[in-house]
Amino acid sequence: MIESYLAIPPLLGFVGLLVALGLYIIVNRFPEGDENVKKIGDQIHLGAMTFMKTEYLYLTIFAVVVIVLVWRSLGQDTAIAVLAGALSSSIAGWIGMYSATKANVRTATAASESGAETALSVAFYGGSIMGLCVASLGLIGLGSLYYLLSGDAHSIEGFAMGASIVALFSRVGGGIYTKSADVGADLVGKLEAGIPEDDPRNPGVIADNVGDNVGDIAGMGSDIFESYCGSMVACIAIASTSAVIAEANREGMMFLPLALASIGLISSIIGIIVVRIFSNLSPALAMRIGTIAAPILFVSAAYFLINFLVPESNIWLAVVCGSAGGIVIGLITEYYTGSKPIVKIAESGQTGPATVMITGLSVGMQSVVIPVACLALIIFVSTNLTGLYGVGIAAVGMLSTVGITMAIDAYGPVADNAGGIAEMAGMPPETREITDELDEQGNTTAAIGKGFAIGAAALAALAIIAAFVSTVSANRGEDLQLLLDNPMVLIGLFIGGAIPFLIASITMTAVGDAAFEMINEIRRQFKEIPGLLEGNAEPDTAKCVDIATSAALKKMLIPGFIAVSAPPLVGFILGPESLGGMLAGGLLACVLMALFMANAGGAWDNAKKYIEKGNLGGKGTDTHAAAVVGDTVGDPFKDTSGPSMNILINVMAIVSLVIAPLL
Amino acid sequence: MIESYLAIPPLLGFVGLLVALGLYIIVNRFPEGDENVKKIGDQIHLGAMTFMKTEYLYLTIFAVVVIVLVWRSLGQDTAIAVLAGALSSSIAGWIGMYSATKANVRTATAASESGAETALSVAFYGGSIMGLCVASLGLIGLGSLYYLLSGDAHSIEGFAMGASIVALFSRVGGGIYTKSADVGADLVGKLEAGIPEDDPRNPGVIADNVGDNVGDIAGMGSDIFESYCGSMVACIAIASTSAVIAEANREGMMFLPLALASIGLISSIIGIIVVRIFSNLSPALAMRIGTIAAPILFVSAAYFLINFLVPESNIWLAVVCGSAGGIVIGLITEYYTGSKPIVKIAESGQTGPATVMITGLSVGMQSVVIPVACLALIIFVSTNLTGLYGVGIAAVGMLSTVGITMAIDAYGPVADNAGGIAEMAGMPPETREITDELDEQGNTTAAIGKGFAIGAAALAALAIIAAFVSTVSANRGEDLQLLLDNPMVLIGLFIGGAIPFLIASITMTAVGDAAFEMINEIRRQFKEIPGLLEGNAEPDTAKCVDIATSAALKKMLIPGFIAVSAPPLVGFILGPESLGGMLAGGLLACVLMALFMANAGGAWDNAKKYIEKGNLGGKGTDTHAAAVVGDTVGDPFKDTSGPSMNILINVMAIVSLVIAPLL
Repeated sequence: MIESYLAIPPLLGFVGLLVALGLYIIVNRFPEGDENVKKIGDQIHLGAMTFMKTEYLYLTIFAVVVIVLVWRSLGQDTAIAVLAGALSSSIAGWIGMYSATKANVRTATAASESGAETALSVAFYGGSIMGLCVASLGLIGLGSLYYLLSGDAHSIEGFAMGASIVALFSRVGGGIYTKSADVGADLVGKLEAGIPEDDPRNPGVIADNVGDNVGDIAGMGSDIFESYCGSMVACIAIASTSAVIAEANREGMMFLPLALASIGLISSIIGIIVVRIFSNLSPALAMRIGTIAAPILFVSAAYFLINFLVPESNIWLAVVCGSAGGIVIGLITEYYTGSKPIVKIAESGQTGPATVMITGLSVGMQSVVIPVACLALIIFVSTNLTGLYGVGIAAVGMLSTVGITMAIDAYGPVADNAGGIAEMAGMPPETREITDELDEQGNTTAAIGKGFAIGAAALAALAIIAAFVSTVSANRGEDLQLLLDNPMVLIGLFIGGAIPFLIASITMTAVGDAAFEMINEIRRQFKEIPGLLEGNAEPDTAKCVDIATSAALKKMLIPGFIAVSAPPLVGFILGPESLGGMLAGGLLACVLMALFMANAGGAWDNAKKYIEKGNLGGKGTDTHAAAVVGDTVGDPFKDTSGPSMNILINVMAIVSLVIAPLL
Repeated sequence: MIESYLAIPPLLGFVGLLVALGLYIIVNRFPEGDENVKKIGDQIHLGAMTFMKTEYLYLTIFAVVVIVLVWRSLGQDTAIAVLAGALSSSIAGWIGMYSATKANVRTATAASESGAETALSVAFYGGSIMGLCVASLGLIGLGSLYYLLSGDAHSIEGFAMGASIVALFSRVGGGIYTKSADVGADLVGKLEAGIPEDDPRNPGVIADNVGDNVGDIAGMGSDIFESYCGSMVACIAIASTSAVIAEANREGMMFLPLALASIGLISSIIGIIVVRIFSNLSPALAMRIGTIAAPILFVSAAYFLINFLVPESNIWLAVVCGSAGGIVIGLITEYYTGSKPIVKIAESGQTGPATVMITGLSVGMQSVVIPVACLALIIFVSTNLTGLYGVGIAAVGMLSTVGITMAIDAYGPVADNAGGIAEMAGMPPETREITDELDEQGNTTAAIGKGFAIGAAALAALAIIAAFVSTVSANRGEDLQLLLDNPMVLIGLFIGGAIPFLIASITMTAVGDAAFEMINEIRRQFKEIPGLLEGNAEPDTAKCVDIATSAALKKMLIPGFIAVSAPPLVGFILGPESLGGMLAGGLLACVLMALFMANAGGAWDNAKKYIEKGNLGGKGTDTHAAAVVGDTVGDPFKDTSGPSMNILINVMAIVSLVIAPLL
């Protein structure tokens, strides 16, 4: 019966791509602006593409090594799956970056020529292209593979591994890039040369704007793509190997994640259309309606789908749980990075930077409690009747409407860039006001998106770990028992807990080191290019982009190597029990550190902005200076080390799952 | 056979107390100094005793509630054991505080009248009294209980619970006290009134000096006492319930921890004597020889003891492992808080406080890796042939020479106080130089002690958790299986991981709140007492001590309540599987956060001191100001929140063990 539906997910994926193409055509019709604006836009676009090219060069070398290793140890099908996963994620990232850096300049021009509503629409469409690409390419890649390999679960796992390799480069490398460019441009520009942020004389300013896209479009997109495909793959793996699943349901349960993602994509497209329809009323309201409509539609349709494929309504509860859980975790993130806590941090700035640090760290630590409790609740409800398969389905439920969730996320950097372009092009203050408003909206959505990404990554990783246990057990013929009082499991637990701290440490230092190279280059240009500071000469912005690119990619190699090599090392030397323990310890520490760092960083950022709006004396006061210290520490927290945690645990989990048959 | 030896541990405990009394008499013979010095010494002594009285008042109320609850649910014997544990720890803390605040003033006077060698001896003897009290009272209390209850393992567990309640008040409350007094006195004194540190005109300066004792004598002592008794209790519990232990060995293995602690006490006493003999050569060298001699002696004697009691030499390897592991973890702590890393932090101060923060956080995160690997290795080796009993014995091995380890720890605050007294009494610069040198030596030993305390607490907690599993299994008649892929275990794991972050957040904020009350009082005195700043009137230092005391104890109630109530809540509502998962998650997160916070804090502290020695421009530069920010953030990290982690996991573990039969 199910065979006849297998072609639907990839076909729907192509429909999604067509919609994305339509949106691209719409965006491209908006005017690019005058020569000056156009030039700045082109520089950012070129910078972004330079980063992508270099990244994909490194990535190709790394991927080829991995694919050869996989081919030799696990066979051709898995190797092809790895390639397909890496390609799908790369293409999504490429299209997303290409479109976003077309939309940013048009958003700025729309803000100056047509007003806030049009500007918001352009930015949202720009983001939607990335959202639809992630959802569609996931379905095309994974759906085709499932169709061609007729559900050979183990080979399909390679797809998620391919996606996770791209995420490693885009998210970790991208995270280092975005912050080193930001810190480098700010330190020399603002502090040494005394010119404002986004000043066109600053050679690092293009790299800084490129960085926003690198981090929040390519980086965030690859992160979500990995969780999206990882959770589907995990469900397929659990359904194919779990001994507790009835044979009659097995086929339906294996196909279910792809089917759910398919209706999720349709719901997302409808949500985007809803935003377009309502955007004449109020653009902000329209975005809120769209993001609520899509999951409601999805959850309702899922009810009938599940009853059709697997007549077991318990699974539907897991979907509801995941879908609602993602929203709740996002809202809690919004509270901690945008409400009372940021006022408390800002006020603590009155007694200097030390108290800003203490309050912010305390807020960040406290912010982990409710999201973690929320995850525990999702696990409790979703597993109650369907076992760990339920966790995978909850993750799929959370991620199925990724089309619109990612659209809202990617809207942020487009709006942010538009502001930067408006500043660099010297647009009038009214335009800046509009772009500032859009940017603020974008910051909120970005914070929610980060919380959502952490929750999704955690659930996806947990599902992959469950699939790992299930696969090892099936291959062994006896259960892999991960007993907490087994010393080998305990050792793994400790090792797994320490790795995230190591990676967080390395990535935090990497930002500083990469920024240092940027700083030297900017200083050199200010010194060696005559007339630059007076505005009579042009900076060599491409050089800064190159330096930030290669510094960032070099710095991500060690953490990347640790993430990829830890599972085989522990698995082959200490055994699958230790590896299982390591994944559990890694998952726990990654989730805690990811929430702590992302929320502390977001709260510091917004506390600074709160003061800059004129509260507590506003800019130029000691309180503001203290808040700037918090923001500077928060930058690598929220944009580099924090997001790296999502990737770390997913890479470790998926590598473990892929090597499971060899253990 | 073994019955005839049961009286030895408590009797040896009395011998230890006699030695401590002898040391007290020696210390007391040293001159107290002139009237002025005497008066300052008396104020600190009275302040310390005021804190102890108030703390023990709160503690009594709390303990009575716990004891009544335990009596009603678990019977009289367990209730008596709780009382005995609480009393033993309280008495050790009281004697230690009493003696240390007698030794501090005599150390200052010795530094001024007789030179460095004598001063170091007095300070070391002062610390040794606390060390011997911890070791002796543990043996007297636990040994007598074992003798009287003839090895009723379950009732004896109450002893560790009693000890952990005292630790909760002394370590968490004490941690808040010491930092709020420090921050309060410094902020108003140095920044607002413009007077130097330890200036006698500052009303908060006595509270500040009291705080050093409260944190590093009573707090550290109760922490170590808890781990010391907890590890012994865990061994007794595992040996009495474990199904894998041969009946012939059971009695010997139950008695073994007490026997090991007995020879550990003798080794410690010999070590202290060695220090005295060699102190004529070089006092610093003497301390090093003593601290190395004691464990070597202990490990050698343990070989014969184990062969005699349990003819299984595998157990001895666990002892060696624990004893060596404690030293290695201490040395790594020393590296991260005293070597290259602190120079790196200091240098990053050249680019402002933000980079000091980033570098320090990064160092702290990195510093967890080797100690955690070390713990994993200890678990691996110690469990390899004796199961989880080996982990308990490794912890006992690490803690048996606690007499001398704690002596070295407690030496720190005595030397620190001596410096404060020298400053307040206006002693000549040469005296200050001597006390500064002693203080520096004390800082190093304190850092090593903190690493050691974390390692010991982690192993003790792990052993208690193993005992919990063993007890639940024995009571149920079937194994409690803590499978990581059981959703209930996973939920517990997540909850357990989040609790340390919550407690860290609460305790960090508590320091700020308590300091705020101190600051208001000091400001009030400067305003309302005429002639205070001119040195013509005396400050009301007792009022400041009172305020810091009650603020600290009030602020520790919520974290204390969470720690004590989490295990019964999770255990009774979600079941023993979730409780087991919670303990594992809590253990992992506590160890990671404890190491991260203690080492980051220690590194910031020493980076500041490195600059104050004249490096990178020295005091008064922007670099120094940046390092001061790091130090201020590091204070609650290393002295409040970090150490609270040790207590948190041990309290949760021991409460779980005690309630295990009710689950």
